[in-house]
Amino acid sequence: MDDKLMLMIPGPTPVPEQVLLAMAKHPIGHRSGDFSKVIAEVTEGLKWLHQTQNDVLILASSGTGAMEAGIINFLSPGDRVLVGTNGKFGDRWGQICDTYGLNATRISAEWGKPLDPEEFRKHLESDTEKQIKAVIVTHSETSAGVLNDLETINRHVKAHGEALIMVDAVTSLGATSVPIDAWGLDVVASGSQKGYMLPPGLGFVAVSPKAWEAYPNAKLPRFYLDLGKYRKEAAKNSHPFTPPVNMFFGLQVALQMMKKEGLENIFARHHRQMNATRAAMRALNLPLFAPDHAASPAITSVAPMGVEAEQIRSVMRKQFDIALAGGQDHLKGKIFRIGHLGFVSDRDILTALGALEATLQTLNYDFTPGAGVSAAAKVLSA
Amino acid sequence: MDDKLMLMIPGPTPVPEQVLLAMAKHPIGHRSGDFSKVIAEVTEGLKWLHQTQNDVLILASSGTGAMEAGIINFLSPGDRVLVGTNGKFGDRWGQICDTYGLNATRISAEWGKPLDPEEFRKHLESDTEKQIKAVIVTHSETSAGVLNDLETINRHVKAHGEALIMVDAVTSLGATSVPIDAWGLDVVASGSQKGYMLPPGLGFVAVSPKAWEAYPNAKLPRFYLDLGKYRKEAAKNSHPFTPPVNMFFGLQVALQMMKKEGLENIFARHHRQMNATRAAMRALNLPLFAPDHAASPAITSVAPMGVEAEQIRSVMRKQFDIALAGGQDHLKGKIFRIGHLGFVSDRDILTALGALEATLQTLNYDFTPGAGVSAAAKVLSA
Repeated sequence: MDDKLMLMIPGPTPVPEQVLLAMAKHPIGHRSGDFSKVIAEVTEGLKWLHQTQNDVLILASSGTGAMEAGIINFLSPGDRVLVGTNGKFGDRWGQICDTYGLNATRISAEWGKPLDPEEFRKHLESDTEKQIKAVIVTHSETSAGVLNDLETINRHVKAHGEALIMVDAVTSLGATSVPIDAWGLDVVASGSQKGYMLPPGLGFVAVSPKAWEAYPNAKLPRFYLDLGKYRKEAAKNSHPFTPPVNMFFGLQVALQMMKKEGLENIFARHHRQMNATRAAMRALNLPLFAPDHAASPAITSVAPMGVEAEQIRSVMRKQFDIALAGGQDHLKGKIFRIGHLGFVSDRDILTALGALEATLQTLNYDFTPGAGVSAAAKVLSA
Repeated sequence: MDDKLMLMIPGPTPVPEQVLLAMAKHPIGHRSGDFSKVIAEVTEGLKWLHQTQNDVLILASSGTGAMEAGIINFLSPGDRVLVGTNGKFGDRWGQICDTYGLNATRISAEWGKPLDPEEFRKHLESDTEKQIKAVIVTHSETSAGVLNDLETINRHVKAHGEALIMVDAVTSLGATSVPIDAWGLDVVASGSQKGYMLPPGLGFVAVSPKAWEAYPNAKLPRFYLDLGKYRKEAAKNSHPFTPPVNMFFGLQVALQMMKKEGLENIFARHHRQMNATRAAMRALNLPLFAPDHAASPAITSVAPMGVEAEQIRSVMRKQFDIALAGGQDHLKGKIFRIGHLGFVSDRDILTALGALEATLQTLNYDFTPGAGVSAAAKVLSA
């Protein structure tokens, strides 16, 4: 049906009506006092969401633009960095390092498996001359549905003392706790179309004082992505370029909604929905692609057997107007991914699972009808 | 009054209701077939607007991001370039060249005066070894309200034969003709919050085959701003990163509206409103900051005598809810600027001029009441 699309992908995620309507307001001048008030309010809200007193800067960009900014503002050509790669996004940060002539050592795991913090520890401990300038980690690897153990990896970075920790929190921020100040995370990047409950169009970068210390000596060229310019203007509740005014209106409302729900409730909701979805997959004998101890609270990846992932997605889309994500790169056709990120209610989980069961029946998959929905319902009602 | 703001600034410009409502639609997946159709339609519309068969690429960025991409994708460190600077934006492109280690020669004019094409000719003709790789020109210099003579400058670039012509068309595209194919413009950058009748959030770069020939050998580092990535995906009606889906919905409707009005009618409207506004300033004895032969069709700059520019802006804003732009940098307080760009009707011009006359009365400025409005009306009704 037209206009009945339900997004269960890891971005864009569903957007509340009041956010959409805020975005439909007439724009105002970005150099006006009224807009400065908007910048002030959303900046305060972003600091709350990021659990930090650090700067949180707002870019007109995708999450990749924000992450690139986070990398190139604090490093110089030839700098040694460690990059965790266990999926499409970790690979991308490695490519950015190569593009800018950084000396990047990949610490890899198979897609679907978490990064091993011990490997980071070994590299960091053996670096007695403190040549490693940064450790780049994707917290929730969207392509595989894996949550990496950022807390432990970061502990090893802190023991090293010199390296900055740079985090892709694109699908973890707003889904699980990313306590920037408590953990001492230096660079944390994210994007609006994820936990923020907004359409795509804004990127965010939180920057620690330690990272700013590295900024004056960082020699990679940048202008539009020069975070120093954003910091200078943010201090005046302004913006160095013309910001996406209407996206800011949406951000303002989305942050108000998030504050009303409360951080702990938001995280609990994502974890509950993750557990419900995983319980349903188990009850349906659909193999989970990521292990329980490293499951992303934003997205559940499933590697079905006895039924084609792409057929499931196709029926879900055509008959039930539900968009699921497929596999990326070499996982294309091998997995499907159910997003439960942002403005997703418990009802949505049951809806998606009900449709999935109907789809499995259509595809003659052998399972116990009702098993998935009831397993999820049990978790949701616990 | 609340919610009565009227934007007469050079961006953000007013946005049609149907564009705003399109932006308030629920987002869809950016990797879906439905979104590919949107990309295909807006790309075709952008080529129409740009009067070109060249690629027109869409970035989530401000106009500055688009212009930076246009520069850094086709040049290498040490390359010699000419940069026209007669305002804030020309200065900015010079700064980008410096940031990336280009060897930039500024060709400057006083703010408010147009660039002298003869100076470009001399530099280009004396470059017998063809060391100049690009000429960077701001077509409509927003900060001063000046339209530079791009056609003549470009003719000298074409006579040189080697250099690429790179154009900031941020406030000229959609206001006056920028015939990319007819003139052979290599790189043309613009932003959504201008003639496009959209809020800020999208940047556009048109790229010629000649510029693409320079791309493989261009050595400035870039990833998010790597236009090769955009080109590759655009060929498949896709996007290399997560595009601002809702901005694309708005762009789709805005381009439909522009097509309905027709290019010639759009340009005629902007020129008519420019002429009406300038006639009014003359009738009010308010000195025009840019000469007639180099007046921007997007924005009229005024350097008032006998009344303070900032007082005019303040009364206009407070009593009549009309936002005018002020001067930037050293022109702060010395000029005010009236935008007539994008979704502005003849009625809006009369409205703004009526309010301006009332404001001048409030400020005890000596003029003939009614002179401005009637001078404009004469132009508009001709």
